[in-house]
Amino acid sequence: MSRIKNTALASKVASARDAAAVINTGDTVAISGFASAGTPKAVIPALADRIRGARAAGGDFTINLLTGASVSAEAERVLAEVDGIALRMPYQSEPTARRRINDGRMDYVDIHLSHVAQQVWEGYYGKVDVAIVEISGITESGELIPSASIGNNKTWLDVADRIVLEVNSWVPEAMAGMHDVYYGTALPPNRTPLELTRVADRIGQPTFRVDPSKVVAVVETNVPDSASELTEPDEVSLAIAGHVLDFFAHEVKAGRLPAGSLLPLQAGIGNVANAVLGGLDRGGYKDLTCYSEVIQDSMLRLIKDGAVAHASATSLALSAKGLAELTDNIDFYRTHITLRPQEISNHPEVVRRLGIIAMNGMLEADVYGNVNSTHVMGTKIMNGIGGSGDFARNGYLSMFLSPSTAKGGAISSIVPMVPHVDHTEHDVQVLVTEQGLADLRGLSPRKRARVVVDRCAHPEFRPLLHDYLSRAEARSGAGHTPHLLGEAFSFHERFNATGSMLP
Amino acid sequence: MSRIKNTALASKVASARDAAAVINTGDTVAISGFASAGTPKAVIPALADRIRGARAAGGDFTINLLTGASVSAEAERVLAEVDGIALRMPYQSEPTARRRINDGRMDYVDIHLSHVAQQVWEGYYGKVDVAIVEISGITESGELIPSASIGNNKTWLDVADRIVLEVNSWVPEAMAGMHDVYYGTALPPNRTPLELTRVADRIGQPTFRVDPSKVVAVVETNVPDSASELTEPDEVSLAIAGHVLDFFAHEVKAGRLPAGSLLPLQAGIGNVANAVLGGLDRGGYKDLTCYSEVIQDSMLRLIKDGAVAHASATSLALSAKGLAELTDNIDFYRTHITLRPQEISNHPEVVRRLGIIAMNGMLEADVYGNVNSTHVMGTKIMNGIGGSGDFARNGYLSMFLSPSTAKGGAISSIVPMVPHVDHTEHDVQVLVTEQGLADLRGLSPRKRARVVVDRCAHPEFRPLLHDYLSRAEARSGAGHTPHLLGEAFSFHERFNATGSMLP
Repeated sequence: MSRIKNTALASKVASARDAAAVINTGDTVAISGFASAGTPKAVIPALADRIRGARAAGGDFTINLLTGASVSAEAERVLAEVDGIALRMPYQSEPTARRRINDGRMDYVDIHLSHVAQQVWEGYYGKVDVAIVEISGITESGELIPSASIGNNKTWLDVADRIVLEVNSWVPEAMAGMHDVYYGTALPPNRTPLELTRVADRIGQPTFRVDPSKVVAVVETNVPDSASELTEPDEVSLAIAGHVLDFFAHEVKAGRLPAGSLLPLQAGIGNVANAVLGGLDRGGYKDLTCYSEVIQDSMLRLIKDGAVAHASATSLALSAKGLAELTDNIDFYRTHITLRPQEISNHPEVVRRLGIIAMNGMLEADVYGNVNSTHVMGTKIMNGIGGSGDFARNGYLSMFLSPSTAKGGAISSIVPMVPHVDHTEHDVQVLVTEQGLADLRGLSPRKRARVVVDRCAHPEFRPLLHDYLSRAEARSGAGHTPHLLGEAFSFHERFNATGSMLP
Repeated sequence: MSRIKNTALASKVASARDAAAVINTGDTVAISGFASAGTPKAVIPALADRIRGARAAGGDFTINLLTGASVSAEAERVLAEVDGIALRMPYQSEPTARRRINDGRMDYVDIHLSHVAQQVWEGYYGKVDVAIVEISGITESGELIPSASIGNNKTWLDVADRIVLEVNSWVPEAMAGMHDVYYGTALPPNRTPLELTRVADRIGQPTFRVDPSKVVAVVETNVPDSASELTEPDEVSLAIAGHVLDFFAHEVKAGRLPAGSLLPLQAGIGNVANAVLGGLDRGGYKDLTCYSEVIQDSMLRLIKDGAVAHASATSLALSAKGLAELTDNIDFYRTHITLRPQEISNHPEVVRRLGIIAMNGMLEADVYGNVNSTHVMGTKIMNGIGGSGDFARNGYLSMFLSPSTAKGGAISSIVPMVPHVDHTEHDVQVLVTEQGLADLRGLSPRKRARVVVDRCAHPEFRPLLHDYLSRAEARSGAGHTPHLLGEAFSFHERFNATGSMLP
């Protein structure tokens, strides 16, 4: 039976190719997708074909592409390969696109994920011409049932001139009801409090609204999302997780975190976050909550085991195995998982109120606790800041995690000065590597520096860092935050010259 | 008639010297004061005497000093002169203290002003032993009437073991009722929405509560605050203000700001902010609102003229002339001014909801829009980040203002790379100097760089900056944010070597 139960919208069913034809060069195109979940599957490749065709005919064809965060690698790649993206916002993680950005051939604007919806509403990105949004179904009354991510879809549907819907019948129908789409946001001066005080609170509705007259095409698909299974945590990740869990136990003992439940956890994605979450299972915690961006497979186990009572996110980025687990036990999981728009999952008001414990990865930190999350050697973008700043600035505790070295030991993730700052010393409270945990709360810069080097730096780099610090402090007029400006990037310059930060 | 109407507290009247005797070496002492307003006047000098005496007797005596923001220069100076401060938090602006911090003799922790109260509650600074809080009176029932600033006083009174009150009869009694002390904050997981949706909303009570059993001394004073009168704006400040006002007009025309009322304004203190506020008076605006930290003399004129309908702040830092104007027309001003705790004046939830237009000063910005607010040449602290980060991150528009040069043209406030970052590229939307205004919204780093140099840099420095950028971009593998790491601080190194950033 068709997933398109509304007659008016059913009459707009079209091919992906016809749908892509509504997009013109110069358009600003906003699409669904957050991490691996919910990217449109059919219209993007058709759009890439259209762009390739226009190029072959001697014309130019580029769009400005707005998304939730990263989208499926496939979608990003096909558009980047045809040089179809003039401007990209707000987060990307696909090698082809990244190369074009670093070559200066694609503009990329890297902003906090909580700022995206409001900045588009405020008009900072001009008119949104087309929205392409994947959903899992359309109700009789014409409401849209979200698919596996929400991201900025509510905003895209509200602001776009023309809307293309992809109805993906691969998304389990039973997922309906997990979504909580909030329709109370507004531009100032008309904003009101978000009445969300617990992770599990519902403040919205399970579906998107859409003005049917703006819908220009409905495309039917049956294509899976492409989340890969996470590998088992390696020793380094387990060591980092161990330090984090010890720290939580210490904070509970000191009366700074509630025993048993801690406070709502936010964790980035990837192996280190996965290891930390895995460790929670063995930490004897019950009734934990998570208020984060992405739910991965590991979260399902924590929910099943009772360690996590409720998880809120904007994206369900599950592997095929994880999806099977979810659908086989959907009535159970539906009461323990809520998916929200990313302006709510990352909202400063909610992050501050709930008292989030923010755990995010980083590329490197400097001895004073400034963090670089985005720029390799200070110049080449990796992915983007994503939501890390939303949680680090407004949360209860802001932690950044990384192995102490990269590239087989050639790169130290603790450096004298980071050549790009995404999180300032004012926003970084705890640094963790497999070497140990540096608690920077209440410390002046000079004291921070000793703790960061001694606890977090790899032993091979410690003497170099101590030497830098000693000479910087010995300098006449060393100042509050001693540095040798001529040597501050010596680690990075050495790497650029020799392929290693070690002399 | 005495300002101390409560019998139990009246029985605790003591000399400043006896009050200072309750403070022991090693204590954490939290005092009132925000900018020039509301610092205790009598007990701090007495404490400095006590410290001097202990030193003379061969002992050691230091305290950890917590405040609202800066306190009166007098108080900071007398304690710094006797090396009485081991650790200082969160903001300072007094030369003697600053010198000791930069010499590494005093620990200073520079945090966002909205984070202070919650971090103390969370226990990051240990136990608060003593609070010294200036008030303007005590009611019969023992409630405390605030003086000219609120700052963190509500928190200090709640958390301190021992409390010293200074009742300053210099503060006009008629100021009572301007204060709105909110008692609804809590530690997570028990936080609830702040029901404040308009600048003029009152959500608290006009007085502080205090547990009388914790009050160890009540000291009577009659000493004025020491705000100096602002000088008339110079040409550079007027030019900056002109660019800001043009920008507002442009944004109103584009439909991105409400005509007439704009959105609530936050402005730092000093001559540039004063010039911008002065300009508003001539901009034809009516019913503007301000949601800021400090109210200075210039605001009274704006209120009187009807340009500003309501101003909310945490400190009334008025000159003697300003204070006379206030008291002469107190019934008028009381309905147009609200003083709040700084955790509310700077609260991320409120700043986001109200949609604040944040205008803060800076030391320097780099070509990509990263801002240094705190560290001269990257190492020497000036004052601190204060509330600038609270407003810049969570507000509607984040603007940073500065003259394009300092030290008679020897220093450029636009540099290739800032050697200390307080506000990242993700949080800076508009830069303004007397040369012009750079609107960075929606621009990739390479495009931002051209706009910043061409609009904001002084013409003498533009060729140097263009040369840097061209060579950085020409480098093989230049990346998303091109830099020459070996030359990124060449301006600063040249200044350190020659006293000028110019070759």
